Amino acid sequence: MQITGPWPLHFAKINRVPDSPARTGSVTVRGRTYATPAFMPVGSAASVKALTFPHLAEMSAQICLANAYHLYLRPGIEVVRQFGGLHGFTGWPGAYLVDSGGYQVFSMQGARKITEDGVHFRSYIDGSPHYFDAEKVIDVQMALNPDIAMVLDDCTPYPADRARAQRGVDLTLNWARRAVDHFRSLNLDPLTRPSLFGIVQGSVYPDLRRTCVERLRELDFAGYAVGGLSVGEPKENLWEILEAVAPMLPDDKPKYLMGVGTPEDLVLAVDRGIDMFDCVLPTRNGRNGTAFTSHGAVTAKAARYKFSEEPLDDQCACFVCRTYSRAYLRHLLNINHVTACTLLSYHNIWFYLKLMESLRRAIDTDTFTEYKENFLAAYRSGDRSAPPEEEEET
Amino acid sequence: MQITGPWPLHFAKINRVPDSPARTGSVTVRGRTYATPAFMPVGSAASVKALTFPHLAEMSAQICLANAYHLYLRPGIEVVRQFGGLHGFTGWPGAYLVDSGGYQVFSMQGARKITEDGVHFRSYIDGSPHYFDAEKVIDVQMALNPDIAMVLDDCTPYPADRARAQRGVDLTLNWARRAVDHFRSLNLDPLTRPSLFGIVQGSVYPDLRRTCVERLRELDFAGYAVGGLSVGEPKENLWEILEAVAPMLPDDKPKYLMGVGTPEDLVLAVDRGIDMFDCVLPTRNGRNGTAFTSHGAVTAKAARYKFSEEPLDDQCACFVCRTYSRAYLRHLLNINHVTACTLLSYHNIWFYLKLMESLRRAIDTDTFTEYKENFLAAYRSGDRSAPPEEEEET
Repeated sequence: MQITGPWPLHFAKINRVPDSPARTGSVTVRGRTYATPAFMPVGSAASVKALTFPHLAEMSAQICLANAYHLYLRPGIEVVRQFGGLHGFTGWPGAYLVDSGGYQVFSMQGARKITEDGVHFRSYIDGSPHYFDAEKVIDVQMALNPDIAMVLDDCTPYPADRARAQRGVDLTLNWARRAVDHFRSLNLDPLTRPSLFGIVQGSVYPDLRRTCVERLRELDFAGYAVGGLSVGEPKENLWEILEAVAPMLPDDKPKYLMGVGTPEDLVLAVDRGIDMFDCVLPTRNGRNGTAFTSHGAVTAKAARYKFSEEPLDDQCACFVCRTYSRAYLRHLLNINHVTACTLLSYHNIWFYLKLMESLRRAIDTDTFTEYKENFLAAYRSGDRSAPPEEEEET
Repeated sequence: MQITGPWPLHFAKINRVPDSPARTGSVTVRGRTYATPAFMPVGSAASVKALTFPHLAEMSAQICLANAYHLYLRPGIEVVRQFGGLHGFTGWPGAYLVDSGGYQVFSMQGARKITEDGVHFRSYIDGSPHYFDAEKVIDVQMALNPDIAMVLDDCTPYPADRARAQRGVDLTLNWARRAVDHFRSLNLDPLTRPSLFGIVQGSVYPDLRRTCVERLRELDFAGYAVGGLSVGEPKENLWEILEAVAPMLPDDKPKYLMGVGTPEDLVLAVDRGIDMFDCVLPTRNGRNGTAFTSHGAVTAKAARYKFSEEPLDDQCACFVCRTYSRAYLRHLLNINHVTACTLLSYHNIWFYLKLMESLRRAIDTDTFTEYKENFLAAYRSGDRSAPPEEEEET
């Protein structure tokens, strides 16, 4: 049953490997193409923190994420609408996926009230009252005019008992249906409208997740996201749910794992058939002085690097690693120099994007399992220049 | 009398105009060349705030300034020395001028004590006691190994009575002589050693300034700086002093006006024969949301730009002006997004560098006076998109 499609999103599967659901693909949406598995740098407020869009272009990012909730509050959707949407507002030539803001609204414990109809919440900026529901979020997203839009979901917190998780699935499905109905009622041009993704909820209960997938598939979304993970649950729950859900998602649509994760998580999730990722870790941890490297995470501010002539990552070809020593980066971090945020964020986003590129190459050359094992072994081996004990930072 | 030279700095005068001391030149120092009049972006702690060195290279910066005082405190000169100096530490391929830190030490009212010998001061970081004198500053600078080093001077505050100004000149001359003696005693390779600049003090007293110049010239520095201006004195004092001092400085050496100024100041100082400038205004004001444009300074955060599709400066070809509307920049400033610091700093430094480029072209084509008048008229005309009254920022 095709309710909403066809979408102006084309997902071409390219290769898969025999011993894993891992696969490569190419998504073309409104003239913009991104290779999968893809990592989307997070620019919630229409800019990736401490980086510029030319930075992202030079490191071959192809799709960025923005957030409806943040942009609705500031600068307001009427501003972005005046520029014809996010592409016109920001000048980013690649693809945009906009998250619905469900996660942000639901994170505001105490400052929001969920009903069957929608969510009442207060602005974290000025306390003003606001209301999001399935239809409103579609309207906000259409003003932002991304290539891919996410429906409003109930991002069920962890832990959630079965009744709470069931209620989350019911709300999510109800809102997904209303979002689709409202979206259809707008009668947008099928060739240029944003493509809608559905979001699977159900907490850590595989059967609830499965029900949610089955009902969502009836709505024929352009792609499917797994939400409500990496919200505090043990890692084994994450993999259990992903192994239950990913195979049930339609193979001819992109599969997107929301808000995950570390470099290890990305490799292991690709191994479960995931095509798309977003995560704030590379930029947030970068601003805090943590670098992701092929030998694991490095606390670049550590006193032991005061004289270090080593780059952050001897395997990395980014301009930060080609140009700067750990001693220089530690110096900038140590004085809270704003450029340190840029340099660490640059390296980390580069590291994530190159990891995805390497995963794609490994899948395309049928060396995925070998690549995965080598990457994880090196990543888990730890920073070779670091002594075992922790030191004071000076 | 040639006490310290020859220096590994070659200043080639290129053109001058008939009706002004304005001139173009080319400074080559240890294989690095910069065109004059030159603006030096300020990277006190070995990085220009919110920008990267590739940013500076792509906007054709040729010389940057760093600061001995900041680098002495953090990361410490032993760190920079290990990398062979600032070029090795930071990877910046252009020229480096390092200021002595006199201005910084003398700004710390109450936390420093000046004697005939030198200055006792406390670290603003941890209160630890430190001591700078003429010889110590040379040693610090040699560890930093810039292309151009400044001697320690008494940066006389404003207002200063005649006795205080006289004492400042005496200290400055005494320390300049000691610096030169100490520098000579190091027996550095004349082809690769840093080139020393002397600094003229004397507050707002033209005769004290003149005496200071005469005595400094006996030391045969590689270049001469005018210090102790733009420290709070009225603008007419600045121009009076510059008109007294600049013609007395040797024409075959670069003339450097320290810590000045606005775009108007730069144009007017070039018109007095100044060759080199540094100033924190473009980066500091950029971080605070002020953009310098050909129509004057613009408070980019102003509410009136909420929907503005205009670039910061319709005459500017930098990537910020080519890509972003005022509405987008205002949005990022309004949410204190760290990338806003980068974008505004980028535009402002670009604006300063292109202004110097335009001044050089005007001098070389004998259109300097016309250019100056047109620039000042446009700059003083104010932002055409701004209404006359001030508004609340929202």
